[in-house]
Amino acid sequence: MSVVPLPDLHTESLVAAACAGDRRALSRLISLVENDPAVRPAVLAKIYPLTGRARLLGVTGPPGVGKSTLVNRLVGSFRAGGQQVAVVAVDPTSPFSGGAILGDRVRMQERAVDPGVFIRSLATRGHLGGLSLATRDVVRVMDAAGFEIIIVETVGTGQSEVDIMDLAHTVIVVSAPGAGDDIQAQKAGILEIADVLVVNKADRDGADQLVAQLQMMLDLAPSSSGADTWRPPIVRVVASEGTGVDALMAAGADHAAWLAKGDRMAERLNRRAGRELFELVAHMAANAARIAAEADGQWMQLVADVAARRLDPYAAARTVLSFLSAGAVGR
Amino acid sequence: MSVVPLPDLHTESLVAAACAGDRRALSRLISLVENDPAVRPAVLAKIYPLTGRARLLGVTGPPGVGKSTLVNRLVGSFRAGGQQVAVVAVDPTSPFSGGAILGDRVRMQERAVDPGVFIRSLATRGHLGGLSLATRDVVRVMDAAGFEIIIVETVGTGQSEVDIMDLAHTVIVVSAPGAGDDIQAQKAGILEIADVLVVNKADRDGADQLVAQLQMMLDLAPSSSGADTWRPPIVRVVASEGTGVDALMAAGADHAAWLAKGDRMAERLNRRAGRELFELVAHMAANAARIAAEADGQWMQLVADVAARRLDPYAAARTVLSFLSAGAVGR
Repeated sequence: MSVVPLPDLHTESLVAAACAGDRRALSRLISLVENDPAVRPAVLAKIYPLTGRARLLGVTGPPGVGKSTLVNRLVGSFRAGGQQVAVVAVDPTSPFSGGAILGDRVRMQERAVDPGVFIRSLATRGHLGGLSLATRDVVRVMDAAGFEIIIVETVGTGQSEVDIMDLAHTVIVVSAPGAGDDIQAQKAGILEIADVLVVNKADRDGADQLVAQLQMMLDLAPSSSGADTWRPPIVRVVASEGTGVDALMAAGADHAAWLAKGDRMAERLNRRAGRELFELVAHMAANAARIAAEADGQWMQLVADVAARRLDPYAAARTVLSFLSAGAVGR
Repeated sequence: MSVVPLPDLHTESLVAAACAGDRRALSRLISLVENDPAVRPAVLAKIYPLTGRARLLGVTGPPGVGKSTLVNRLVGSFRAGGQQVAVVAVDPTSPFSGGAILGDRVRMQERAVDPGVFIRSLATRGHLGGLSLATRDVVRVMDAAGFEIIIVETVGTGQSEVDIMDLAHTVIVVSAPGAGDDIQAQKAGILEIADVLVVNKADRDGADQLVAQLQMMLDLAPSSSGADTWRPPIVRVVASEGTGVDALMAAGADHAAWLAKGDRMAERLNRRAGRELFELVAHMAANAARIAAEADGQWMQLVADVAARRLDPYAAARTVLSFLSAGAVGR
């Protein structure tokens, strides 16, 4: 008779193999972590002490500004410096996830044959427990597996993209001339999280105007008057030709050096740990409460009562919460 | 000595005044509900039985496609039919929230002198407990105050915008020629929630191509093969001139009639109530657990332990959850 490995033994050996450099094991572990929130606590318990070594870069911006071409250039620069690089594309339009035109995709896939590069795309929908929690743990697996640079690419201006960028040490926000309307939207959300601003396609008409607009926004930002604040530099890039990529690498290094001074990095990590802990407690508690209410046969009834307006949502939530006991959620 | 009203008495009289047609009271009540999650349970307990009467329309799409101009036209059409209309703009670029060019803003503000119209913009950042929960309760206040049509306008392609649209009965997704790159992004998220597709600026070059693209996407969507599914119609509009607005009103009415048949509306409301209940339980439980852990002096320490990698986030979350007891969260 063959011995069927127990699930936790299986996960344990997968973690060991992934951290020892087995790329197939790494792929399978990432899929597990991405798709099954139940497996994350056991995986994290193993890998968490091995994390915190990678430098985490976020690259974000609206569709069509050339983020993936830029990421491809950054990968090349880090590889030229001998560093191992992982890329996580949380972007349905990214060539890394097969969403874009063929030329781009081919260019990206050349990277895939380099053993010092690991590329992974994440589905943007249907994540139990939230996309940002899934992305965070996938990045941790890559970190534990020894990648020195991890680049996370997201698209758009929504709250979930902003949440994902929360994990990065340095956030690069990309814009390009001709996508002018998007600047208005960025103003509200994305600019707040930028550590470095890239104007890509800087050889096109409108690039000077875009740089001026961004400068003005930075001048108006309330944070620019603070004493210990970082003013995001604006870097002009033509990613398709590689122009400006060295300047961008230098700007990123400047930000890393700034972060490393005093308590800045510790404060940033502390703030982020607090936000993550809250988010995690929320999801775990709600799952436990729903399961307990379902076991008692009440969840469906409460939902129906809310839908039919016999009970308001807050009153129903209090009832669900009453199913929580220390014993039920502590596991 | 003057008598200072107790907070709950104050809220109670505000609710009564808002529901009796006092617009200043309504404004103040909305601000309360938007900014103070603690006040929501008491307000909802009062107003929830009065809700469920309004027809809720969502209008979403990327910046620059003319959503606000379109919303303004829809408001005009509903007003011509004698209905009271409220608009909630969850969009930093909306003229309703003062984010756009002056011409637009003036046009929108003409609506503000019509007593049958109520316009409100919500901040998109910094909502304790989440933007979608805040928006949902603001819409309920408007519903209880007697508005027959409530239009919620959001921008973008992110998860939080998709979450907000979850409250609408009919979701109108707007695109326009020239914003071609955005179609790729919409494909992944926004198209899934569309009940009606609008191609605005339909007099411009590229409109036919955009309609064809959308048709193709609908043909490829897995849901289009199901028996009891609604295929979103594509409506060409030139909102700036009012062209196509009647056809859009008709498409919206068709969708409402489709929804009203059989159990469709009940199923939709049930699914949404389940999602809202889960989200609400998550936020309430996490708040209660954090407060309990803080009272015990352990929250900051746990956050520091996670940040310093002495403890993994899941282990820390389990400890925080152990502070939850039925008594602590049931209030």
